[in-house]
Amino acid sequence: MKKLKKLEPLGTESLVDKVETRLLMFFKENKLVPGDAIPKEIDFATSLGVSRTVVREALLRLRTLGLVESKKRRGMILKQPDIINNFARILDPTLLGEDTLKQLFELRLILEMGMADFLFENRNEEDLDELEKIVAAEEATDTHQIRFSLDKEIAFHGKLYQMSNNVTLQKFQDLLLPVFNYVYLKDTENTNLDDYHYSEGEFVSHRMLLETLREGTPETFRNAMRRHLEPHFDHALKTGGR
Amino acid sequence: MKKLKKLEPLGTESLVDKVETRLLMFFKENKLVPGDAIPKEIDFATSLGVSRTVVREALLRLRTLGLVESKKRRGMILKQPDIINNFARILDPTLLGEDTLKQLFELRLILEMGMADFLFENRNEEDLDELEKIVAAEEATDTHQIRFSLDKEIAFHGKLYQMSNNVTLQKFQDLLLPVFNYVYLKDTENTNLDDYHYSEGEFVSHRMLLETLREGTPETFRNAMRRHLEPHFDHALKTGGR
Repeated sequence: MKKLKKLEPLGTESLVDKVETRLLMFFKENKLVPGDAIPKEIDFATSLGVSRTVVREALLRLRTLGLVESKKRRGMILKQPDIINNFARILDPTLLGEDTLKQLFELRLILEMGMADFLFENRNEEDLDELEKIVAAEEATDTHQIRFSLDKEIAFHGKLYQMSNNVTLQKFQDLLLPVFNYVYLKDTENTNLDDYHYSEGEFVSHRMLLETLREGTPETFRNAMRRHLEPHFDHALKTGGR
Repeated sequence: MKKLKKLEPLGTESLVDKVETRLLMFFKENKLVPGDAIPKEIDFATSLGVSRTVVREALLRLRTLGLVESKKRRGMILKQPDIINNFARILDPTLLGEDTLKQLFELRLILEMGMADFLFENRNEEDLDELEKIVAAEEATDTHQIRFSLDKEIAFHGKLYQMSNNVTLQKFQDLLLPVFNYVYLKDTENTNLDDYHYSEGEFVSHRMLLETLREGTPETFRNAMRRHLEPHFDHALKTGGR
């Protein structure tokens, strides 16, 4: 018999992909909103001309993504997806590639530079007092070291994110934290910690950022933050390989 | 017989949840990285003392999230998840709640304010020329209207994101675009378009942003961008209800 090329299986994978996409289109076209019931598995199977197994797998995916949920006696309904929860499950730095990690690190710098207006809009005495406590605690523990300390950064900057009054941003930051730590620790493994230094004379401390947040404007705060983040920017721009 | 409280079913849902979490912990503890093979369904079932069906569903979820994939003859292996693809599937503005939409809209403003340093780091003649063309085309089509136009915004700002040289940021923006459009159209449905006006005299156009990008510094660019985004900031801060 003539030697034949192997017949590749069609694969249910791609069919499930297609059904997933078609279901999403179907919801959209029918302008379904969270809370609306969706047709039964068997109805989808009949309409699409595919097996129930394929439809079931596609629906399971949508359930995994939090787009649909099963309700007792009501069948399946559309659900408002929790974008942060989805992100959380996949954002394990050990599984992300070098490029993605670098880009997420840059994203953090971008977010901190960009959120000034919202900090000024929402600042109140209570929050500023809490920041004051964080800064005072820092100053009490270390005497005069200017060097970057991860814990101090997290307490202070985490509070800033909280003050932005944007829950999505805040949760996003919570998720990105392990990424930052990972990138930071990875980078400093080979480098001397002192490489993470302030490139020019002026050092903008957390104390100075706090004062700017009390007395300044979004504009002066952005400039202060840029100076504060200087070593990280130097690092990000240096390792660009752009 | 005494009236008894209903015995609630344990639900396979929560068991699958637990198995999903345990599998993720298992990968982490064993420091598995993308490309590494993972144990078989049956082995997981035995170790965890649950049915194969439960393990299968948990693994299906991880496959949906892009964390594992099936390889011919190799069983399942860990995979580098595509964080953007995951985001893309759930980011349908019609399914997101009011609060989330508002927060994502703010996030856009934050990103555009924050990315200046990366634009200056990566700007080159080719990109600046392309921006020039976009601005020139704008100027040719509308004579002297200052009013906000969605298409023009997308062309110009989309190019800026591209110039940031951060693919994750860029894709993130692509995903957020429908959200912005949705929020914008929703807001202007009830409001007169003219409400989206520039609150004070000075108007920073795309042309002026481009000039700043050519001749200025990240700092002057941030200030120009803040003025350019003024109506959006006014809108975001006004509708805060904070």
